[in-house]
Order: sequence, then structure tokens, then C-alpha cells
Amino acid sequence: MTAPGAAADAAWFTEQHAQSGSAFGLRIKARVHAEQTPFQSIEIFETTDWGMLMVIDGCTMVSSRDNFLYHEMMSHPALFSHPRAKRVVIIGGGDCGTLHEVLKHEEVERAVQVEIDERVTRLAEQYFPELCASNHDPRAELLFVDGIAYMAEQEPESIDLVIVDSTDPVGPAEGLFNAAFYASCHKALRPGGILVQQSESPLVHLDLIKAMRTAMRMAHFQAVRTLTFPQPLYPTGWWSCTMARKHADLTDFRERGAATRQFATRYYSVETHKAALALPPFVREALGE
Amino acid sequence: MTAPGAAADAAWFTEQHAQSGSAFGLRIKARVHAEQTPFQSIEIFETTDWGMLMVIDGCTMVSSRDNFLYHEMMSHPALFSHPRAKRVVIIGGGDCGTLHEVLKHEEVERAVQVEIDERVTRLAEQYFPELCASNHDPRAELLFVDGIAYMAEQEPESIDLVIVDSTDPVGPAEGLFNAAFYASCHKALRPGGILVQQSESPLVHLDLIKAMRTAMRMAHFQAVRTLTFPQPLYPTGWWSCTMARKHADLTDFRERGAATRQFATRYYSVETHKAALALPPFVREALGE
Repeated sequence: MTAPGAAADAAWFTEQHAQSGSAFGLRIKARVHAEQTPFQSIEIFETTDWGMLMVIDGCTMVSSRDNFLYHEMMSHPALFSHPRAKRVVIIGGGDCGTLHEVLKHEEVERAVQVEIDERVTRLAEQYFPELCASNHDPRAELLFVDGIAYMAEQEPESIDLVIVDSTDPVGPAEGLFNAAFYASCHKALRPGGILVQQSESPLVHLDLIKAMRTAMRMAHFQAVRTLTFPQPLYPTGWWSCTMARKHADLTDFRERGAATRQFATRYYSVETHKAALALPPFVREALGE
Repeated sequence: MTAPGAAADAAWFTEQHAQSGSAFGLRIKARVHAEQTPFQSIEIFETTDWGMLMVIDGCTMVSSRDNFLYHEMMSHPALFSHPRAKRVVIIGGGDCGTLHEVLKHEEVERAVQVEIDERVTRLAEQYFPELCASNHDPRAELLFVDGIAYMAEQEPESIDLVIVDSTDPVGPAEGLFNAAFYASCHKALRPGGILVQQSESPLVHLDLIKAMRTAMRMAHFQAVRTLTFPQPLYPTGWWSCTMARKHADLTDFRERGAATRQFATRYYSVETHKAALALPPFVREALGE
């Protein structure tokens, strides 16, 4: 029952992140599920203090306690940066937490979640039911197909917002971090449309963030902005997402809409949206801003 | 050579934080020093990716790579919230990183570091020389005495800023988190003076932050504000400090001074100062703001 990286005197699951030389762990009561899907290994743990924990290929993916940080920041800044996002596509996001946040916006008429591995969603339904509370919303559509192929097949100028809520850029998600994929997104987006993608840690993945931003610009996105926020479960506990916009800038967002939103958030607010946009000097310098 | 919590196939030092049920670790090349002082155990590790690491009583204290986040945010927001802090006292802070940041401000005429354990500073001089670069500044004074007694003995209204850069509120630092200590600080501060104290993780220590803020108000501080910032080395990777001010509010800070500062910072800027003040809804609610 003791996971790799755990001490002998108690049960801990610890992800040792080779690239950054840092590790994060949670104390666990039990591993309640484990399986190998055609795409990856998935484990579910019950923790002592963080609720349920999903681990994919040995990487901590989502916990009950802290996922609101990531899911809110992957959704609301982009949705309040767009004047009225009616059609939203989520690539990845199989735990359905991003879908749940997106559907809090009444302007969204259709949200399609494109997750390659159906088992992620089925396990989320079982172990993270709060994240799946909107799966039966009539505006929601859950597809279990390859997101790269899906985006390549979309009608030009048919989508307002693409959210890439993927695992790290190794394995199945690798093809989501390159110019070809961004070109598909750019083509599928309407003018003013936004692509937002999780972009790893500002402390240890600045090269990746920089490469991603360059690739987005090469795909003819007019404006690119990176936001940061806390996310304990991911390496260094400090995470980011990067927004790219077609035929429009990303200077402002709908502050009034955000301030008068009719739904609850735990991390997102007008103030934390602005805070996320405030990149520290060392990040600005590395990104050439 | 394998530390507690480390995997068998590589050397990691991992701190398992019992209270939050989370753990953080760094991959290490070697433990280069270990000793038991009259106050605590101190270990120094050379890591693969984070430079040097100091561990006190099994808790990760400071690494070469990420300490700028904490040291800058413990210093500059308070110094730019005060119109002209001439006399500064640092309680704890034995690694000298806070002292180094404080002395970047030319308005500071005297900065006294009051660290109970001289060995922390001697080891910092050896393994973190960049943090000790201002130890011989003529404005600096390094004392190795008990900070609680020191503050109780200070002349009334003689200090502009007290920075409590301590370990967690257990063991030697416990007496730094209560109303009696805050009363000493309040008495020693000049009108408009500021106390700033590290206040743990906004995600898992909200009760502590709330208790600290209540105790500060009981000690007659007029205004109290909590700031948050990333700090990978500490539990959850998301950290905070709490400022309290005597006979004045904490609504604004010297934005122009911060924007035109004549020294380099890596995390601190006008924008990140404001970002740190932007508490998310769940924190505001818990703190009754």
C-alpha cells in the first residue's frame, strides 16, 4: 500500500518530478482503485486531509481539496476576457471540473469536453461527483476521442473558446503543445476567439512557457498572455495558464461582468484575475515582456 | 544518505508536514553538514536543481532557488507601506536573506537582526553567501539573543518596522505568535510603525492566520492585512505574511517609490505587491473581510 517515495512509517503518495528535482506528496488512507487503460495508468487514493486524489502515470492530477484553484483559473479569466463565449471546447479535462466551471456562465450555449480516455471521466463521476455535477447539463457534450484530431476537423470560425486542460507535454498530451495544434485551434476559432492552455510552473518551466507563446504567435494569434496562480498539487505549487487570442488583444477583461457574476467562486474574483496577470519581474524578463 | 521520505532509487529529502497531510521534497546530491545546536538540528544539503537547502528540525527552511520569493515579500511590501522606515528589527531571519532585502532601501538607517541561534547565520555565511552579502553593511547589526526578550526591552516608540521571519509556531518560535509578543512590538513601534510576520499557508493555516490577526488587533494595532505569494519550499507552496500597523491604516503603499526603486528584485514589483493584497473569496470569507 505504500506508494513509491513514501516513508516507511506512514502511507504517503509522493510524485517525484524528475525535471525540476522536486517532489509533492499527500498522506493517504488507502488506494481505492487502480487500473491500466489503453492510454495510461490511473489510481485513486483516499487521503487524510485532501479528500480524494487521482494519479495518472504516477503524476498527481486532481485532489478534492485544491482543484478549485486550477479549474476556476482555467475557465473564468478566459470567459471574462471574451465578450460572449457561446461555444466552448475543452480538450482533455476528463475530471469534468473545468466543464463544471464553464457551465456556470449563462452565455455558454454549448460546451464540448473532448477527453481521450473515457475512464478518467467514469472514475471522476464515481470519486469526484462534485466536479461532475454539470455533466448532464443540456448544454454539455462529452466526447471520448483524440483532441488533436477533433480540433483539426472543426468547421472554421465555429468556436469561441478552446480550453486545453491536459496532462504534461509528454505522452498523450505532447501533441497539444505545438504549432500544428495551435493552427487547428486558430482556424476553428471565430474572430476574437480565445485559446487557453495550462502552461506548467513559472518557476521551473519558463522555457516551455516561452516556446508555447512563440508557437502561438507563429500560429497567428494576435495577443498572448500568461497568468499565474497557486496549485499545490502540481510541481512547485505555483502554476500558470497561457491565453492566446485571434484578431483581438487581451489587454482588458469584462470587469463588471466578473464583479456581478451570479455564481460562487472560491478563488476567482476581479482582484485575483488582475493578480494572476501581474507577472513578476523575473518571469517578464524571461518571456521578453 | 537517503533522508526520511525518500525513495530507494535516488536521494531525496522530503518534509512530511503532518498538520496538512502534504509533503514537499527536493532531490539531493549530498548532505554536506549536520549538527545539533542548543536550539535545534540544522542540516545542509546540496540539491540537484535547487542549489543549497537548509533544513531545521526536519523542516525545509531555505533553498538557493526559491528563497527570493519569501525574502522579497517579507520585506518590500512592508517597507513600501511605511513612509520612511529608518529603524528596522528582524526577529529570526538567521539566514540573513531578509536583512539583505531590507538594506536595499536607502531610507533604512539601522537594521538589527535578532536570531536566537548563531549557528543558522554562520552556516548561511558558508552555504548561502549571496544572502549574507549585506552582513557587513555599516547599518547592519547581528545579535544572537532571544527575540521575545529583545522586543520586550526596546525603548517605547523607537522602531519603524519589525519583521518576524521565524520558523513555524512550534518550538522556539511559539512565543512569537501571541498577544504578549504583539504588545511588545506595538509598544516599541513608533506611530505609523508596521509589524509584519510570516503567517503560513492560506490553504491549510487559515485558523492560524485568523488567530494571529485577532491577537494583533487585541494588541491595539489599528490595521491588519494579509498578503499571499508563492513559496514552493513551504507546505502547499502557497504562503502568506500578515502586516499590522500602529495608529495608521494599510490601505495604500508608496506606489511611486516602488515603481522607481533603484534596486533589483526578481518577484517584487508594484504589480505583484497589489497581487499579493488580492485575497481570494474563500480567504476573505474565512477572515471575515
